[in-house]
Amino acid sequence: MSSDQEPYCDFRMTVRVEIPNLPGQFLQLATILAEEGASLGAIDIVEVRKNRMIRDITFDARNEAHAEAVIARLRLLPGFRVRSASNQIFLAHLGGKIATRSKVPVKTRNTLSMVYTPGVARVCRAIAEDPDKSFAFTVRANSVAVVSDGTAILGLGHLGPLAAMPVMEGKIMLLKEFADIDGWPICLDTTDTNRIVATVQALAPSFGGINLEDISAPRCFEIEERLKASLDIPVMHDDQHGTAVVLLAALLNALKVVGKRIDSIKVVVNGLGAAGTACCKILLSAGVTQLIGCDRNGAVLNASGEYLEAARKDVRSCMKFDQPFATLHAALAGADVFIGLSIGNLLNVEDVRSMAANPILFAMANPEPEIAPELALPYCRVMATGRSDYPNQVNNLLAFPGIFRGALDVGARTINEAMKLAAAHAIANCITDEQLNEEHIVPSVFDRQVVRAVSRAVARAAVDTGVARRRHKK
Amino acid sequence: MSSDQEPYCDFRMTVRVEIPNLPGQFLQLATILAEEGASLGAIDIVEVRKNRMIRDITFDARNEAHAEAVIARLRLLPGFRVRSASNQIFLAHLGGKIATRSKVPVKTRNTLSMVYTPGVARVCRAIAEDPDKSFAFTVRANSVAVVSDGTAILGLGHLGPLAAMPVMEGKIMLLKEFADIDGWPICLDTTDTNRIVATVQALAPSFGGINLEDISAPRCFEIEERLKASLDIPVMHDDQHGTAVVLLAALLNALKVVGKRIDSIKVVVNGLGAAGTACCKILLSAGVTQLIGCDRNGAVLNASGEYLEAARKDVRSCMKFDQPFATLHAALAGADVFIGLSIGNLLNVEDVRSMAANPILFAMANPEPEIAPELALPYCRVMATGRSDYPNQVNNLLAFPGIFRGALDVGARTINEAMKLAAAHAIANCITDEQLNEEHIVPSVFDRQVVRAVSRAVARAAVDTGVARRRHKK
Repeated sequence: MSSDQEPYCDFRMTVRVEIPNLPGQFLQLATILAEEGASLGAIDIVEVRKNRMIRDITFDARNEAHAEAVIARLRLLPGFRVRSASNQIFLAHLGGKIATRSKVPVKTRNTLSMVYTPGVARVCRAIAEDPDKSFAFTVRANSVAVVSDGTAILGLGHLGPLAAMPVMEGKIMLLKEFADIDGWPICLDTTDTNRIVATVQALAPSFGGINLEDISAPRCFEIEERLKASLDIPVMHDDQHGTAVVLLAALLNALKVVGKRIDSIKVVVNGLGAAGTACCKILLSAGVTQLIGCDRNGAVLNASGEYLEAARKDVRSCMKFDQPFATLHAALAGADVFIGLSIGNLLNVEDVRSMAANPILFAMANPEPEIAPELALPYCRVMATGRSDYPNQVNNLLAFPGIFRGALDVGARTINEAMKLAAAHAIANCITDEQLNEEHIVPSVFDRQVVRAVSRAVARAAVDTGVARRRHKK
Repeated sequence: MSSDQEPYCDFRMTVRVEIPNLPGQFLQLATILAEEGASLGAIDIVEVRKNRMIRDITFDARNEAHAEAVIARLRLLPGFRVRSASNQIFLAHLGGKIATRSKVPVKTRNTLSMVYTPGVARVCRAIAEDPDKSFAFTVRANSVAVVSDGTAILGLGHLGPLAAMPVMEGKIMLLKEFADIDGWPICLDTTDTNRIVATVQALAPSFGGINLEDISAPRCFEIEERLKASLDIPVMHDDQHGTAVVLLAALLNALKVVGKRIDSIKVVVNGLGAAGTACCKILLSAGVTQLIGCDRNGAVLNASGEYLEAARKDVRSCMKFDQPFATLHAALAGADVFIGLSIGNLLNVEDVRSMAANPILFAMANPEPEIAPELALPYCRVMATGRSDYPNQVNNLLAFPGIFRGALDVGARTINEAMKLAAAHAIANCITDEQLNEEHIVPSVFDRQVVRAVSRAVARAAVDTGVARRRHKK
């Protein structure tokens, strides 16, 4: 992909044009792009004929309408012919982003007889006698299904299973590229909780783990719980736990920066959907004792006093959505940490100024954070967002590849709280004390040591908590 | 795989041994193998130390007990240590036989932004607006699920979904190796017809086609019919139709050899399970007018007279399993063709001699044919079996890769009778008149022209019958 050196553009177009092979022709094209404010990128010659030349012109537009306006003007140039116009994103998706690979070339009768009939029958019989052998001699050894029903795709909402496929394929790509895990995207043509559970249970023999993705709350909680209870392979809803693990990692490092202890801070979590609920749970597991959870109605979860023990068991059962006891703004007074998983621009500067000294803000709403970093930064000590164009991006790509890698390495039967906590500490520890500062509390997603560190920590935690089928990576 | 030059052996073992680094040691080992009647194969040196040498010794045994007896004697040799003993078939299956490949390396933020968030959202929206775009921009473009419930695995019977995985993975390998099709094995933890149908319907958005496999009769008929009726992607139960297509191809060429016309022959099909039923259907579609179907009770389907029209619609509805009108032996008298998909050794020489002149025998029971070729050959003109160690192997590997390749190439919504007939004729035509003879009526499974010919013919038939989404391969 030639565009890898350039900054990302959502509307990068590649247009194939036939141009008369005469002096000055390309200048006309460049002039139009300049006049329209479109940024010219790569120019490739595809073919040169006697009178005509075929070129691929890549340019960045502001949006789809802008790109179409530019192309419409190109079509009007005398002697020019626009043969095709393709968006670079769609080109990258053409024919799908993943493929299957056969590990053994099947070129001879002898190989065919070993990997298929009649030889394969011996492996079938061995697995029938000892089902755990499926983790040694089938793709279950190293595979994860990324399962969605398309009800909560990115920030787009409910677009259905077909529209969810590019995201789930993308996730399979990332599992492969970052953690060498195999798998397949499974997008389900049903939104019924019972059918989703039954379908995933039915296809579980085909995979070594299940990554649930982009399933809307509150159905996602029940689906994950029932699958975890009924399957003996790792099941994880990444929107909940991937986010929670990276958030905890970022918080651990932010606390080092400001010199506070996790058991003495007051934390306000705003937004109690899939991610917010999971963040509350992991914060309590990690030692937070003063936690206020808020949703759009105000503060509905208070884990500082009598609710704490119950909250450790099931955070959602403690939420009184119809009986808020305070507003978000009141809850923020004196808080050390704000964690937003809600909607953009709902905090103001006064809210930040009402917090305790050295406030930590995790404003992770996308694409607009709960408060713009430009506004908040003068009044807070550490700030993180979900965006890649500010420092401290909380990105669950830091967590899920290593978590599944570690779980598969030791044949874990589940992903438990200890494994998630271990993952968070491993991510945090990828940043040394020398590297740590206000603008560097999480490693880069392209830092390859992260997957290694997370997978080792997760595998060790699985062994230590007795959920591993074996003690060591095969 | 070093064994590719050697004939296939079901019990080929590789034993890693530590041997004292002294003269004459290897001779002891070779002597034991010779005494036990085990055939010595490759000998690799793994490591040489001061006093010891580590070697991998490969040998062929008669069966598992024989292999174990040999290894037990090796263990008794003074100074020898057997470190591991692995069957070559299991080695080929270690960690699974397939893997996932990412088509786009994700090394930079820019690529990540195109194949995952935020760029992927544009592709999601485009598919939400036009669901058929899923065949252009997701793995549906080129993928097939191989689905089984493990109830009829090869000749092994009902061993369950985990034990079925090596076969379904093998089939995914073959689809990749022979037809460059991607996919995933889906083995279902249910044998309930309704649940199987519901599960495959639910996961259909994740694939471009469905290959049903090793599902026991009669459930396989209902499952395939309901899925074909409800899904807009190709669905094919290969045990039925793959076998039927190759059988018809072989029959077309056998008829050329003996100089008979398909509309004037009398055919007896014995065994009316999945494959036998499908063979009856395709024979009627191909022009057979005199067809007798037999099961273990005798002749239960007579398509020579009043049943013919009904039989074309639904062969099974015409079978009167509880009212046989003749025995298999009576049915064979004067028959031109016998097609066996039943059990071994149920015909005798007299049966063959009672057939019409130049009889054609397709004895496809495995591992023992309905009559041993050695017995039948003196009395028949053309004989085919399901085995690779006799001429004329009827192997559905000749059909299913090309059928799915052709269907995917033109975005076929189904696999219809015309496509199957086209596949059979294409396979038959891979053998020229000069090449054709009694012992060469089907091409080799390793003949790469077969997939090309079958896929072209199937794609054309799909376009001609109006079930293709596009006229040409993308």
